Amino acid sequence: MIMNFRTDLALEVCEDSPDEFSGVEISTEEDDELGVRVTWVEIQNEDGAARMGKPVGNYVTLESGAMKDGDPDTHDEIAKILARKLARLHDLPKDASVLVVGLGNRFVTPDALGPKVCEKLLVTRHLGDDVPEDLRGKLRGVSALSPGVMGITGIETAEIIKGVAEKTAPDLIIAIDALAARKTSRINATIQMSDAGVNPGAGLGNRRMPINRETMGVPVIAIGVPTVVDAATLANDALDKMIAAILEAAESDDTGGGSNFYEVLHSLGDEERYSLITQILTDENMFVTPKDVDAVISRLANILANTLNISLHPGITAEDVGRYI
Amino acid sequence: MIMNFRTDLALEVCEDSPDEFSGVEISTEEDDELGVRVTWVEIQNEDGAARMGKPVGNYVTLESGAMKDGDPDTHDEIAKILARKLARLHDLPKDASVLVVGLGNRFVTPDALGPKVCEKLLVTRHLGDDVPEDLRGKLRGVSALSPGVMGITGIETAEIIKGVAEKTAPDLIIAIDALAARKTSRINATIQMSDAGVNPGAGLGNRRMPINRETMGVPVIAIGVPTVVDAATLANDALDKMIAAILEAAESDDTGGGSNFYEVLHSLGDEERYSLITQILTDENMFVTPKDVDAVISRLANILANTLNISLHPGITAEDVGRYI
Amino acid sequence: MIMNFRTDLALEVCEDSPDEFSGVEISTEEDDELGVRVTWVEIQNEDGAARMGKPVGNYVTLESGAMKDGDPDTHDEIAKILARKLARLHDLPKDASVLVVGLGNRFVTPDALGPKVCEKLLVTRHLGDDVPEDLRGKLRGVSALSPGVMGITGIETAEIIKGVAEKTAPDLIIAIDALAARKTSRINATIQMSDAGVNPGAGLGNRRMPINRETMGVPVIAIGVPTVVDAATLANDALDKMIAAILEAAESDDTGGGSNFYEVLHSLGDEERYSLITQILTDENMFVTPKDVDAVISRLANILANTLNISLHPGITAEDVGRYI
Amino acid sequence: MIMNFRTDLALEVCEDSPDEFSGVEISTEEDDELGVRVTWVEIQNEDGAARMGKPVGNYVTLESGAMKDGDPDTHDEIAKILARKLARLHDLPKDASVLVVGLGNRFVTPDALGPKVCEKLLVTRHLGDDVPEDLRGKLRGVSALSPGVMGITGIETAEIIKGVAEKTAPDLIIAIDALAARKTSRINATIQMSDAGVNPGAGLGNRRMPINRETMGVPVIAIGVPTVVDAATLANDALDKMIAAILEAAESDDTGGGSNFYEVLHSLGDEERYSLITQILTDENMFVTPKDVDAVISRLANILANTLNISLHPGITAEDVGRYI
Repeated sequence: MIMNFRTDLALEVCEDSPDEFSGVEISTEEDDELGVRVTWVEIQNEDGAARMGKPVGNYVTLESGAMKDGDPDTHDEIAKILARKLARLHDLPKDASVLVVGLGNRFVTPDALGPKVCEKLLVTRHLGDDVPEDLRGKLRGVSALSPGVMGITGIETAEIIKGVAEKTAPDLIIAIDALAARKTSRINATIQMSDAGVNPGAGLGNRRMPINRETMGVPVIAIGVPTVVDAATLANDALDKMIAAILEAAESDDTGGGSNFYEVLHSLGDEERYSLITQILTDENMFVTPKDVDAVISRLANILANTLNISLHPGITAEDVGRYI
Repeated sequence: MIMNFRTDLALEVCEDSPDEFSGVEISTEEDDELGVRVTWVEIQNEDGAARMGKPVGNYVTLESGAMKDGDPDTHDEIAKILARKLARLHDLPKDASVLVVGLGNRFVTPDALGPKVCEKLLVTRHLGDDVPEDLRGKLRGVSALSPGVMGITGIETAEIIKGVAEKTAPDLIIAIDALAARKTSRINATIQMSDAGVNPGAGLGNRRMPINRETMGVPVIAIGVPTVVDAATLANDALDKMIAAILEAAESDDTGGGSNFYEVLHSLGDEERYSLITQILTDENMFVTPKDVDAVISRLANILANTLNISLHPGITAEDVGRYI
Repeated sequence: MIMNFRTDLALEVCEDSPDEFSGVEISTEEDDELGVRVTWVEIQNEDGAARMGKPVGNYVTLESGAMKDGDPDTHDEIAKILARKLARLHDLPKDASVLVVGLGNRFVTPDALGPKVCEKLLVTRHLGDDVPEDLRGKLRGVSALSPGVMGITGIETAEIIKGVAEKTAPDLIIAIDALAARKTSRINATIQMSDAGVNPGAGLGNRRMPINRETMGVPVIAIGVPTVVDAATLANDALDKMIAAILEAAESDDTGGGSNFYEVLHSLGDEERYSLITQILTDENMFVTPKDVDAVISRLANILANTLNISLHPGITAEDVGRYI
Repeated sequence: MIMNFRTDLALEVCEDSPDEFSGVEISTEEDDELGVRVTWVEIQNEDGAARMGKPVGNYVTLESGAMKDGDPDTHDEIAKILARKLARLHDLPKDASVLVVGLGNRFVTPDALGPKVCEKLLVTRHLGDDVPEDLRGKLRGVSALSPGVMGITGIETAEIIKGVAEKTAPDLIIAIDALAARKTSRINATIQMSDAGVNPGAGLGNRRMPINRETMGVPVIAIGVPTVVDAATLANDALDKMIAAILEAAESDDTGGGSNFYEVLHSLGDEERYSLITQILTDENMFVTPKDVDAVISRLANILANTLNISLHPGITAEDVGRYI
């Protein structure tokens, strides 16, 4: 396993590696007009999974700085692109029912993405035959649950979801979560969708039992946005870049200065160095987040809720959504 | 059944009736120092249940205007009284585990009582053997869930609770809910606890399947606070009082004025009159609530959370609670 | 003065009166497509003011049930209509600067309209020459202040505004406030704009010094939405309607029943009757509000903020606004 | 000036310096029982001010890890210690009136400390002669204002305060603000009080005009709590410690390894190095904050509000406060 730093993005695990892994396929598409980059990472077998530190499955990452800005038209475009990728990731029958789960703690702003998405969904499972006439045949049965986090409920989040899924029998579970990234530039500017489910220890929370097809008995799609970078990861990356910058300067000076130090650092190995950094930054609960995180989380929740509303309800367009919520 | 007006308080159903019912026992205690009045209503059989419009069981009501005020010492005293009544209502073995359920919609202030109580609980079920040494033997296994309301989740609230209870196997469920009262003077000044569970259509929400021992498979204690009065109930009561006041004045004038009108009104019957009022006040979604409802709900949530924290954790006092939450 | 009941809407004062007042002009326009009704009430002199219980000035009321619903396209249409009426009410020079004041208590949901509008404004006064190039010449200098309420600040709201206006010298003050209406059907479905300023005791708050051209030294436009009905007003109106309904029934029965009672009630006079009702409903702090008030206030704040953003910034359209906030 | 890193704590500026400054006096007291450390830094003249990068005045810093925990008894003790230090910092006549100003943005959690303190104050200025009898002679005239931040109001914060102060004529202004520290261990565990006012660029906001005795015309006490560390400061400090750790290891190995690199780094100088780090961490809006920041800010607001309530109202004890708010 090559990942020593905290990231929930398959994309960033790949970036860390100098060469390709066997068992992992990567492909990239760009949409120049909107500045959107989409990367598909397919972990094909257990060998790839072991190297990536992530379970077998597909990981689609959409990157765009425009998510952080306030333009609702661009947000609609991003939601439409996401909806197309989601349809490619998982083919959903017309009459399938879906349980959307908003993971995370609604009282901790950067962890509140999941609950906020659930608040904006067009929820229909309870309507039964009471669907308004102009919407008949246009809606799938959608339910939504924000189970809270274990520190507040005292219950493993996966247990709550499993209990509710057994009562309500959805055909698909979609789990929304806040993630941790390695690069600050990815915070609130990246969306990852995966059919591999949500893994233990992911995100900001303390969830331990995985939420995936094996544990839930139905397919699980995970959709996440990195909202923080772990403080130790930030410090470590800054250190790396600093060393690289100084070495480059030293080499161009042709003095060789610093190479001994670099060797010492290099000989530590990635894991030892990260461990040293975390010893220095003793308070593990520190994370890095942008100043306007409250506003940005709210925008991202809108994008994801729109994506789900148009993806899950075949007869609803982005323009319709406002009318029915 | 004598109740034509919307109230969730057994106490108010009794007050409506001129004489006692067979199958219903009522007793009252007063605590003069704190101005607290405690009423026990026991519905003993199906005959009483039919007359009261409420299921068989015990209903303990604690009334005190001091709940609305901000004095934390009085709040602690009320929490202690409530804890004693709760112990009398349901005898809880030392090692019993408890699931507390916060019913209601956290985004509608007067309906947010249940979720707010859950936020303030000392939740312990997930600690297992990780309980701090000074707390060993002092804590019961407590979990807490705020399931949301059907309009937001698309799922019957009772189904969610049942699903989670099957996974977590609590010995007791305590359901916290906001209620509707008939008298505005009772808003936020009354707490009702019952071993009869929560019944369909109670409170402000749209819950239909009951949450009680039969549906959940374990005992259910319901704890509720009236936070609103239905607008039609208010108008109707005002009308009643107005007529009474005018009749009294008329009689003392010895003119007999108004008696015809009173007879017309009286001949309508309670149900017809209420139905006429609701036709006049066509918008059913109107309710009456005090101006400072946000602050008062927050205080009430504190009182109930303290009550539960000292009731459920045998080694925790009111003074300790702050230290562990 | 004819108004005995609590309403902040000039329109409702007029409705109470059987015939027209001298000194008051009323005209109405309807927009059939959107179901919008616009009423202009002009109080022309002190005689009219005395009869109306409101200061001399223009009061424009826009009524539409569509405000309460969630369709953003309709909201944009309403914002555009409002912007046109606002331009007719007060002609604003191209380079005029405006201070928008959000009156009310942000912690009391139905009183939080003003502060919520201020959160959504495109505020520009501080930009000076830092305006982005594509916006040059398109923006007026707009500032926004939510002063809080006297119970929280200890300061008369008008004093705070006056102090800030003296430092910042705006050409116009626009004050946003939550109002009380008489009819529940008008709650959250009516917007009143006036050039007469905000008067003492209006709304839910405890403001005593008026905020108008005389006290502030610059023109003041008040924009308000009724978000509550006083509980005593509700009860009184219900009583009125009840009596009318019964009398009608009695007359058609040709029995004459109830006329004595009606005479008693009628002989009380409006003020005495209202006073009797308020004695019956002793808790003055009760008001009537819809269940989904949190969501509706948020929508209304959007409509008003959009109205102001397109009204105050000549080069900004409804479509642009999202991009710049 | 020796400070190249972002800190608002005079204490941390002193720690950065190898030796003492002329014009700066430092003294420290410890309270062993509570683990509270109090440091007084007096900047005595312009020479000291230039070296410290902070204006002449007294800076009292109270440090205690217990602030972050939830024990209300310890919080009360800390409030009492703070109240005594505040009395020593500024002698307030018995009938003096005070305006408390909550700086910062209430919608950005780590910046919301000031507005949150204002919400919990016992505000009395508006009571005039309406003070309840049992409180007569026990209260000073206290008002409270949360002016918002310039990005939301369009107005310099100091202008708003100055305008309100001119209307209300307080004898003292107390400004509460969130600060930036250099060390993550100080976040939410340190309170600084100063009679030097609040300086431009402090905290998280964009305030430029100072709020002090010169600009306001009355004494200004600033009370602040560091709630964040700037991400570049964190990375830089981690780098420093890393180099020190490796050098130490290298020296004990007696190999001299790394000294060239250290010399390169050292030769950069503090300012150049910090500038290099900020180039690497390009997104300036990133900051480091603990995961439970929402809860911790709420506790700190309680401590500060209690401190002010018992400091400003001579007849009110910590135990009384709950009763009157």
